This record gives sequence, structure tokens and C-alpha cells, in this order.
Amino acid sequence: MGDHVFIRACRGQEVPYTPVWMMRQAGRYLPEYVEIRRSVSGFLELCKTPELATRVTIQPVERLGVDAAILFSDILVPVEAMGVPLEFKEGEGPRLSYGVESLKDVEALKVPDPATTMDFVLETVRRVKEALAGQVPLIGFSGAPFTLASYILEGGGSRNYLKTKTLMYRRPEVWHALMEKLTDTVVTYLVAQVEAGADAVQLFDSWVGALSPVDFREYVAPYTRRIVRVVKATGVPFILFGTDTATLLDDLASMEADVVGVDWRIELKDAVRVLQGRTSVQGNLDPCGLFMPKDALEKRIKGILEQGRQARGHIFNLGHGILPQTDPDMAKFLVDTVHRLSKR
Amino acid sequence: MGDHVFIRACRGQEVPYTPVWMMRQAGRYLPEYVEIRRSVSGFLELCKTPELATRVTIQPVERLGVDAAILFSDILVPVEAMGVPLEFKEGEGPRLSYGVESLKDVEALKVPDPATTMDFVLETVRRVKEALAGQVPLIGFSGAPFTLASYILEGGGSRNYLKTKTLMYRRPEVWHALMEKLTDTVVTYLVAQVEAGADAVQLFDSWVGALSPVDFREYVAPYTRRIVRVVKATGVPFILFGTDTATLLDDLASMEADVVGVDWRIELKDAVRVLQGRTSVQGNLDPCGLFMPKDALEKRIKGILEQGRQARGHIFNLGHGILPQTDPDMAKFLVDTVHRLSKR
Repeated sequence: MGDHVFIRACRGQEVPYTPVWMMRQAGRYLPEYVEIRRSVSGFLELCKTPELATRVTIQPVERLGVDAAILFSDILVPVEAMGVPLEFKEGEGPRLSYGVESLKDVEALKVPDPATTMDFVLETVRRVKEALAGQVPLIGFSGAPFTLASYILEGGGSRNYLKTKTLMYRRPEVWHALMEKLTDTVVTYLVAQVEAGADAVQLFDSWVGALSPVDFREYVAPYTRRIVRVVKATGVPFILFGTDTATLLDDLASMEADVVGVDWRIELKDAVRVLQGRTSVQGNLDPCGLFMPKDALEKRIKGILEQGRQARGHIFNLGHGILPQTDPDMAKFLVDTVHRLSKR
Repeated sequence: MGDHVFIRACRGQEVPYTPVWMMRQAGRYLPEYVEIRRSVSGFLELCKTPELATRVTIQPVERLGVDAAILFSDILVPVEAMGVPLEFKEGEGPRLSYGVESLKDVEALKVPDPATTMDFVLETVRRVKEALAGQVPLIGFSGAPFTLASYILEGGGSRNYLKTKTLMYRRPEVWHALMEKLTDTVVTYLVAQVEAGADAVQLFDSWVGALSPVDFREYVAPYTRRIVRVVKATGVPFILFGTDTATLLDDLASMEADVVGVDWRIELKDAVRVLQGRTSVQGNLDPCGLFMPKDALEKRIKGILEQGRQARGHIFNLGHGILPQTDPDMAKFLVDTVHRLSKR
């Protein structure tokens, strides 16, 4: 896989065209996904059924011609394996029910052995690799400690992260113990995915942009740094992703990931300038951009590609997950347009 | 009022200490507010009863000793006056029910005459001014066109602003007509507040940070610029506020507002650097910072004050509204600490 355009772009090597994939590319905007989703009782069941998870992982590769597959799963899978009750109610976000107030609550959480508690993920990785037969690389992933901690502490999504930040500020020893445990979990989980066959990994710190730079440095950065260091030692490219990270970008660039992913709030050229050739860049079309008329979208794609040319390496992506309301034909148009306009 | 510390800081003149106020300082974290709120049937009724709105506007001035009062009202008041049905359901955000799909839908909206449709606001301004008796300045305010448009188009709050952006991208002529009408409304509304006695105004473009810089420049900036220009001609200081604006800051600084407000995601020193002395700066403690232990909070306040000293002028504030769960004693501690640490 070392010579695949996606892996080469991660490493900042010459590529014949700009590779492209989309976050949440295996998802509800695809009718073939909806059909499989309907055959199971819940979203988590789909994640836990390797045969079906494999099929939906492959779907966007077949329909869209993206340059990488990403494991179909949920960022909260390792949190459930740690012992946090998790459910997805139809049409709502995740609900987690585990209170963390003391060190004892953190101690009661497990650092799960992926081979026993999350074997369905590893089995999906093995099956996807077999099904892809070397066509495109497979990206494994995990939620990052801050984002996972925020789901545990808030019991779901949040607008202001008050419970998370209150624990951070008032019980720093509990916060750091929780982050240690999440970090151990994430490291073990990502390494297991690589050992099962993942060709690259992405760490989703989706909500880290809710933090001030000062808080990020004190309460989060050391853990992210450790994850990158240990997982990179496996030899596969490491992508570090978050939204709303314009003011954290210099810190993120210093973590020695291969790629840093950014959202649309920052102009790609500004991100490239801050990264200073330390990492490749991934992004950054607004997912709402797929609702533009084609000519306007093409112009937008062209602008992003031009700015990406100044980067060490550029992987085209959306700035966050593709929206369920997206027309699959527009997703296909995006992939084709990136390929056509970026041909060297 | 021209010599008041708050007004002087807005204008970048020398001040004896750093002035401080808090967004949503008249609100649910104050038991005396909750008591008055209980005496009316709904939130909008409170906004529309000048006697009560006056009392809650004054409460934080009396309890906390802030350096400015801000009119108690809601950013959506002018939208309702334009003809958009609006309701606040207990414990939920606002619900708006008015579809905008064509130019006709925009044409059916009014540019309201504040003196007839929003006289309760102007009456509150007059009463507050009388009650304050020159003690501190009164800040009037309005939601900004983008933020108001997003509430109309999404029917309430939003996570991804898909409907808003879809109209922007697919029906630009409808978008621009809507923004024109909102701009006319906001200008008239703010000028009326100044004529009724407001000593400064703040434009809340709370959700503008959801836009890419390219979209901001094309779809929003011209309207913000016009509002600042016309309202500044009245002679009162103009504060331009948004959250998540780190990547829009240079554009915002170019609008010739007196003050630009930023949230905690950007280090104040970086904001000051981008503003380049063009405007004063307002901010930027994370509202969750009020849940820190006092010694940690004091250290955080000190850091912000030191960075603010490099600005043309600095008004201490939170990065967004104070949270309902806040202990009023911590709000008082914040105000006292800012005053104590910033004394020249």
C-alpha cells in the first residue's frame, strides 16, 4: 500500500493527482446504506455485525471511486468497551450513562482488550481488507480522549461542555486519570486495528475546538501527543482531525502526526502556512458545499486544490462528515472533479 | 457619558482600570431575575413589559458593579416585528415559523418602524436611562443579519446551518434580498435605540463563525459594513460581536467598528495582533471559567488583562453569555477581580 496515492499524500510524497475521501462517506446519504441499516434493529448492531459493516464500508468505494475506505464504526465503540452504557435512540444522538465524579469512578472503567471486547471491529478490518483486495487503503479510527471524555461526562453531545470543563477545572486529578485511561484505551485500540490490517489511522478529536488554547495545552495536548507517538511507531500514517481548530493548529502541527485535518472555517492556505511543512493537510470543503450548483462547487473545489498545492501533501476531504441530506450524485461529482482538476 | 471608563475603552482612550460587563448578565443565574421571570407567563412577555425589563436590566449593575448595563431583550425581537411568528417554549430554544423560498416571501416581510412595533424596547431604554441616572452607560443591541437569517431559515437554532447555506448557494438573489431587508431593519432598530438614549450598541452576529471566510465575504460582510457605517454616524461606540471568528477577525477589524468582541477560542494577544490597533477588543473568558476555583480563575483573569493591555482599548467580558448554572458570587468575584487587578 506504501505506493498508493493516498498513503503517498499522507507522507508528503509526489502524487499523480490529489486523493479524496469523505468523512462519514459510509452513511445515510447512500440508499444502499439505508437498505442495509434497515435490516438491523439499531445503529450499534450494524457496527457490531462484521459482514454488514464490511459491506457499508465498501459501498462508497464502489459508488464514488474515493481513494480510501474508512472503517464503518462509531467513535464511541471503545467507550462502551470500557464499561460505559451506551445507546443510540432513533433520530437522536448517543446517550451515555456513567457518572464520573471521583477517582473511584475512573478506576472502575476498564482498559479493554480489543481482541476480546471489540473483536467485531478487528474482524471488520480483516474482512474489508480482503474485500478491497489492495484496491484502496483502509483507514482505521478512534475518537480522541477529549472528545470521548466529553461524551462520557455530558452523557451525549453538548453545546457548552460545562460538565467536562467543570471536572477539568475543579477535579484535575480525576480529569487526568480519566484522560490517562482513555489514552491507554485509544492507543491499544488503534494499534490493534493496524495489526488487523488498517493502512492508516485517523484520530477524531471532533469537539476539541471548544477549548481555549491554554486549556488545550494543559488538559489535552500531552495525551494526543502520546497517542500519535505510540501509534506512529507501527509505521502507518497518522491523521489528526478536529473541527474549529484554527487557533490550535500550531499546537496540533507540533504533535508529529503525518496529516492534520481542518474544517472550512480556516482558509486552506492559512492552515498550510501554520503547518509550515511539518505535516500534510486534509480538508476542507464545507459539507454544505455539496448543495451548491455544480459550477459554483467546481470553482470552490478548484480554489481548495490550488491552496493545497502549497502544502507538504494534500488529501481532499470535507471539513466534517457528509450530511445525510446530500445527493449521492453530488458526492460522486466532487470525487470526479477533484481527480480531474488535480491531475499533474 | 463620553467620559465613562466603558465609553473611553471603546474609543481606545486612557482609562483608570479595565471596564467589565458580561453578556447575558441580566439572566437566569440571578435569583432576583428568576423571581421576576416567574411573575410573567413567558420570556417574550418579560421583554415586552418595560417596567420589568427595566428592573432586570438594572439588577446586575446593582449586584455586580459592572461598568455597563445592557438592555434586557432578545435578539429575535426585530424578526418578530418583521412578521415572523416567534415563540419560546419553556426549556427549549426559540421556534420561528416562516418559510423563505422565493423573493415573494422576502417581500412579504416588513421593515418595521421601531416606534410603533417595538416601542416596548424604546420605552425600556428610556426607563433604564432614567433609573441608571448616569451611573453607567446603557448598551443597546440587535442580532446581526446573518444570525437573524439563520434563525428564520432554520426555524430555530442549528448545528450545521444547511438550510441557510443552501439558500445562500442556490438562491443568491433571495438571500441578498433577505439580507437587505434584515439590514434595513437592524439599522433602523439600532438608530432608534440610540435616539431613545442608548450610549453604545452591540451587534450580535453570534453564529457567523459557522461560515468559511470566503462565504462571509460574499454573503455577509457588505451588510455588516453598512450597519456599522450608518449606526456609527449617530456618534455612539459600536461593538461587533461573534463567536468562533478567529479566521474572520481581519475582515471584522476592517469594518470600522469601535470594538470587536471575540470568544475564548482565540488567545486575546492573537486577536490584538490581528486587530492591529484598528479597534478596541472585548472579551474573552470562557463562560465555563466561572466554574474554576477562585485562585485558578484569578490567574486566568490576570492573563487576559495582561494580553488586553497591548490592545488599543480592552473591555473585559466573557466570550459568550454567562451560563444559567453560574454562581452569582463568582460573577461578582470576576468583576471585583478585573477591577482590582487592572487598576493603573
